[in-house]
Amino acid sequence: MRTLKLTLAYDGGGYAGWQRQKDAVTIQGKLEAAFTEIEGQPVTVHGAGRTDAGVHALGQVASVRLVHPIDLMSLTRALNAKLPDDICVLCVETATEDFHARFSARSKAYQYRVSLGSVPNPLERGHAWHVRQSLDFEKIRQAAVLLRGRHDFAAFQAASGDYPSRSTVRTITELEIKSDLAPAWLGAPARPVLVFDVVGDGFLRHMVRTLVGTLIEVGAGRFGVDDVAAILLSRRREQAGPTAPAHGLFLVRVEY
Amino acid sequence: MRTLKLTLAYDGGGYAGWQRQKDAVTIQGKLEAAFTEIEGQPVTVHGAGRTDAGVHALGQVASVRLVHPIDLMSLTRALNAKLPDDICVLCVETATEDFHARFSARSKAYQYRVSLGSVPNPLERGHAWHVRQSLDFEKIRQAAVLLRGRHDFAAFQAASGDYPSRSTVRTITELEIKSDLAPAWLGAPARPVLVFDVVGDGFLRHMVRTLVGTLIEVGAGRFGVDDVAAILLSRRREQAGPTAPAHGLFLVRVEY
Repeated sequence: MRTLKLTLAYDGGGYAGWQRQKDAVTIQGKLEAAFTEIEGQPVTVHGAGRTDAGVHALGQVASVRLVHPIDLMSLTRALNAKLPDDICVLCVETATEDFHARFSARSKAYQYRVSLGSVPNPLERGHAWHVRQSLDFEKIRQAAVLLRGRHDFAAFQAASGDYPSRSTVRTITELEIKSDLAPAWLGAPARPVLVFDVVGDGFLRHMVRTLVGTLIEVGAGRFGVDDVAAILLSRRREQAGPTAPAHGLFLVRVEY
Repeated sequence: MRTLKLTLAYDGGGYAGWQRQKDAVTIQGKLEAAFTEIEGQPVTVHGAGRTDAGVHALGQVASVRLVHPIDLMSLTRALNAKLPDDICVLCVETATEDFHARFSARSKAYQYRVSLGSVPNPLERGHAWHVRQSLDFEKIRQAAVLLRGRHDFAAFQAASGDYPSRSTVRTITELEIKSDLAPAWLGAPARPVLVFDVVGDGFLRHMVRTLVGTLIEVGAGRFGVDDVAAILLSRRREQAGPTAPAHGLFLVRVEY
């Protein structure tokens, strides 16, 4: 029995999220079906991040234990042949026996994309949150500084947190906000985007989306910069801004 | 009666192209339906480029003549409210009475996106042509030099050219090829792309796609750099490479 590490990209638009569900199409479900066909018996695939419905991945990591002796090149090819074209296995590697995509993860990087302008860009629909108001980028950056580091992020956790008793302390090691990163279309009408790059040792459910939703409130002037410190301290979800929509979020990378 | 100039973006993936057709959904058809509702009588919309089925636009231009006195802000809003979310009016301006989006155009800029790597990127599917072979970028750039300038591009015209008797001489003023322009995903597994930026005074049917298809053949080593000069001189479509797929092509800008 080998333990394998998979790196995956997917467009989450058509899925009810990562996690296997009885009556819904999920990424884990699709992967397990493909592996089960190859292995000839049920296979469980563990993902590093259980991305929500609609969330995308550029570098999700999953682990799987396999008896079948297929070589890794052929396995990658076989999986991609069986998977729909919105899920793709970028790479399969041999891992140490005790490797577990979720429990072994040391940090994760997410990107959240906001598209700006009075009308949504039809070519970014499904891959960015369209925000119509003009935003004060400088205030967003100032507020972001308050969120970096080790904090209790209970206020930024989904109200229906699965494990309310668990620790809600996490460390955000990076929170960078870049503007004007629209793809370099030669002279096309400007389509500004605002990109949030977030790296941390772990994230609570909806945490990135609630951080972004709150920072957008700051940019729009509905929250002051200092409100963000008060929201953190409050530990109360209802103090923070709205949860930004799933389709702007990308799981970019997982580190071990 | 006012003449208006519209700037449009659309995802062509769901359409049978720009041009109105009896039994197919087209961009022109959708726009004309929206305008006709506003105007209360049939309206014809002229596009600068009659993009093929599946081709996208970031800055298509269209002209329309309107009796209804609606102000331009409200018109933009009304159109976007009526149009599906894969077509979007970026801007409406008043034009001189004789302005015609197609006949007045002086130059057009297209971008063609190729995504590379052994497996297709699920997040670029529908917006880039996935080419699996490794390509010699330098050879592609050398061959591109031969295509710049004023030439008879008959060899790069769709075999079923609509107007075989018309001149097939065109001038390509820019043909730049950029590599490694993948969106700046923070540390995600590298997803190289190859981007062709083409500007010219006009383009024959399928011309950009056939230029790209031919240059990819050069990059893959199936054509030599010098073959491209011979193909141009031959004026025969069957000498050139395949027509690159529609979904990698974007009409970026039209100049007047």
